[in-house]
Amino acid sequence: MLQRTTVRALESWTEGRWWSADEPGATVHDAVTGEEVVTVSSAGLDAAAAVAYARDVGGPALRRSTFPQRAATVKALALALKERREELVELSARTGATPADASVDVDGAIGTALVFASKAKTLPDANVLPEGDVEPLGRGGTFAGRHLLTPLTGVAVEINAFNFPVWGMLEKLAPALIAGVPSIVKPATPTAYVAEHAVRIMAESGLLPEGAVQLVSGGVGDLLDHLGGQDLLSFTGSATTAARLRGHEAVTARSLRFNAEADSLNGTVLGPDATPGTEELDLFADAVVHEMTCKAGQRCTAIRRVLVPEARLDEVAGAIAERLARVVVGAPGAEGVTMGALAGQAQREEVLAAVGRLRAAATVVTGGAAPAEAVGADPRTGAFVAPTLLRADDADRAEVHTVEAFGPVATLLGYRDTAHAVDLLARGGGSLVASVVSRDPDVVRELVTGAAPHHGRVLVLDRDSAGESTGHGTPMPQLVHGGPGRAGGGEEEGGLRAVAHHLQRTAVQGSPRVLELFG
Amino acid sequence: MLQRTTVRALESWTEGRWWSADEPGATVHDAVTGEEVVTVSSAGLDAAAAVAYARDVGGPALRRSTFPQRAATVKALALALKERREELVELSARTGATPADASVDVDGAIGTALVFASKAKTLPDANVLPEGDVEPLGRGGTFAGRHLLTPLTGVAVEINAFNFPVWGMLEKLAPALIAGVPSIVKPATPTAYVAEHAVRIMAESGLLPEGAVQLVSGGVGDLLDHLGGQDLLSFTGSATTAARLRGHEAVTARSLRFNAEADSLNGTVLGPDATPGTEELDLFADAVVHEMTCKAGQRCTAIRRVLVPEARLDEVAGAIAERLARVVVGAPGAEGVTMGALAGQAQREEVLAAVGRLRAAATVVTGGAAPAEAVGADPRTGAFVAPTLLRADDADRAEVHTVEAFGPVATLLGYRDTAHAVDLLARGGGSLVASVVSRDPDVVRELVTGAAPHHGRVLVLDRDSAGESTGHGTPMPQLVHGGPGRAGGGEEEGGLRAVAHHLQRTAVQGSPRVLELFG
Repeated sequence: MLQRTTVRALESWTEGRWWSADEPGATVHDAVTGEEVVTVSSAGLDAAAAVAYARDVGGPALRRSTFPQRAATVKALALALKERREELVELSARTGATPADASVDVDGAIGTALVFASKAKTLPDANVLPEGDVEPLGRGGTFAGRHLLTPLTGVAVEINAFNFPVWGMLEKLAPALIAGVPSIVKPATPTAYVAEHAVRIMAESGLLPEGAVQLVSGGVGDLLDHLGGQDLLSFTGSATTAARLRGHEAVTARSLRFNAEADSLNGTVLGPDATPGTEELDLFADAVVHEMTCKAGQRCTAIRRVLVPEARLDEVAGAIAERLARVVVGAPGAEGVTMGALAGQAQREEVLAAVGRLRAAATVVTGGAAPAEAVGADPRTGAFVAPTLLRADDADRAEVHTVEAFGPVATLLGYRDTAHAVDLLARGGGSLVASVVSRDPDVVRELVTGAAPHHGRVLVLDRDSAGESTGHGTPMPQLVHGGPGRAGGGEEEGGLRAVAHHLQRTAVQGSPRVLELFG
Repeated sequence: MLQRTTVRALESWTEGRWWSADEPGATVHDAVTGEEVVTVSSAGLDAAAAVAYARDVGGPALRRSTFPQRAATVKALALALKERREELVELSARTGATPADASVDVDGAIGTALVFASKAKTLPDANVLPEGDVEPLGRGGTFAGRHLLTPLTGVAVEINAFNFPVWGMLEKLAPALIAGVPSIVKPATPTAYVAEHAVRIMAESGLLPEGAVQLVSGGVGDLLDHLGGQDLLSFTGSATTAARLRGHEAVTARSLRFNAEADSLNGTVLGPDATPGTEELDLFADAVVHEMTCKAGQRCTAIRRVLVPEARLDEVAGAIAERLARVVVGAPGAEGVTMGALAGQAQREEVLAAVGRLRAAATVVTGGAAPAEAVGADPRTGAFVAPTLLRADDADRAEVHTVEAFGPVATLLGYRDTAHAVDLLARGGGSLVASVVSRDPDVVRELVTGAAPHHGRVLVLDRDSAGESTGHGTPMPQLVHGGPGRAGGGEEEGGLRAVAHHLQRTAVQGSPRVLELFG
């Protein structure tokens, strides 16, 4: 009991002040050492007051400036975070993230905000955005219509996943700010202390209009009960939680704008043309290993299913296993470490349980358990999982297309022909991303068009683009991020589309003189 | 009992054949004479088989042609309907629709389909639609991204409202067909016989690919249980049903694409500049009366709230009442009749009950009950309601912003200034459309930008555009139709946006050579 009181209670930032619950709430442990880091609770937080503060103070304060003015604020916020990025990287190590992993999160967040700010700086110096052409609606030219986009007058509630506490927050927050819609950010508890610190940096920058951003550390409580048709709820996380949120009557009965980005069983396909000795085969094996080990495989976009021509299963299994053998698991920052820990023991248990379910349909090529050793850490105390490659001899088994092990785990599958590969990709039930490694235009065309309806993004990798390719797992702010079906059916990012998600599209009709009033 | 067996059982058209249930189901009565018209039931219909038929037969058949080819098919279907429009107009009279009302439905449907076909004929001759610019993603120019739109591989289920059996069907069906997505159409029971006849005309035209369109006459049964992330559900109707559908696990857990267009409490605002003697005041009174009486006020877009400057309440009440006194209620087609019946007795009961609730906050200026007389009909047997104008002295009362009487009913409210008018419009909780009758640019600017976040469409009416204006109540296929919050939070029409709603947006990344493969 004595020790518990020495652990810091993570704070929320609502109604312009920092606040913590009277009760200790959940304890978050260091992913590597198991030490207590913070306690997290929102018990007693007045969610209704936070929503009212956003609507009544934050929204009007934001909308006193224009799209480009707010874009400049977002740029300045990104630079404020950049200045103090080391603090965030250091804190991230406690979540199991290596410096490279933390860079994906922290520098990724900064870069994403800067891209949105850059795209938005050319928007009209106003809070009304005309869209598309004027549509004539009468032969005499006296009556026409045009679409206008205007900021919603409510609040954007942003519920983020544990794997990217900074990037996940900024990719939602930056477009909302630019749009002129205030945000209430709710980070996932296991890594909420990183998100809280990022909010603190932004708050301390003095750049944010009053009420433009609020932070709820801990559960959402009754927050959704206060939301309606002028509000947004953007969620990243599990499909189960997405379904629960989407079933709330704020969504079903009051048309709260809801967006979900859920984990999915993303696949990669090695083209039949990528035979041994081609650069593409090496690029493929490198990419699979990178995606498996980056963030210890805790990316919504990570490769879970590795599709190769049936005849090439053995060779590819060997090429990947050989690379995985060189992965060094251990404490973030320790000498030579290339893969860190999962976010916590609960995550490790879930991953190993999922591997167990996959083993009903697949055999373990390498890994499959906690590693025997971890550099600079105790492999039992830290939430480590050895990089794990499975191989399913029957590619059509349900498990490999439905069971997601959210860690450094992928399953190798053989396909018969490109139509079979498309069918296998589609069996994920909707995914965030697929990749195709091939240099054959016919193969690329068939796989991309076949995969497209089932994916939010398809990356083609070959020797031409390999040097600059941003890779299978990395959503780019210029392009949409999200996917149909199991991936949540939502869409984030995509350049100015992300800003437009926070605006209401309205068809305005009238005489040409009327339409001219709005640009 | 004997008579019942002589009433035709309305048929469904699924799996390429016409089908009717063994049991009689609900009986639909003539809205004017009360005679039995048809019985409607889908009991025993194999919804799973219809969904499979759409996905396995209809989708592939449609996607063997391209966007412009399917646009040509839609144009031909519209012309086939045009050729037999009299049959539909005649049948519509039994639903209470005057020839003018039926024209809004039937000719509106044909015109809408033709606009979509015309917009889509210039799309790429393919099933892949590139969107927006190529986004460079590397400084060396070897890696970039672009968005592609491709047809979903599932089925579009289209649940329509009773008020526009033909237009409501076509505005959903035409974009789905052009997109390459098969449809299952489910009309509302009270007017399903008109929709069935329109489907029969399209089926008999021989233009439809096998499985491209199916019709379910009667309840949806377990249809939604078979839908998932590659399917769409488009609903027009009551907010209550919208909420129930949106809460189904096909939507919440499987990311079925859901769109709702629900009735709303649309408002119109008379600008302070439209003083007595101006053309705008006459335009305003004419528009209110037209919207109240067209389709006997059974339009989702009808004016329910009439906002005028407080000082002008008496004059405007007089101007509207004077015009309403000239409305002739009676059987569609009977001499001099300018307003028909509601769709049935159930609708009449609901409307009169809603008028009763509104009377807690408003007084009756004119109407408020069944009319004493109906030309060519028995005013008790037919589902007639007298045009009803109410007036609320306290414009801020909740009832007038929440109780919708879905018939020839509107409530007059006084506003203090334009900010108050915007606030009153917003109190509808999200509406399909608002209109502003004013010629003052400042008034127009303030009302339109204030109303925009709460509306899918805002129409400005003045003497300049009056001659060609399509009016408050008429959605145009070139512009979006739908609204936030209470209006369902959805979006239909809007030109090629309607086609894009049926496509999956996918970010494709790769070398410039790869991106060139897709146009």
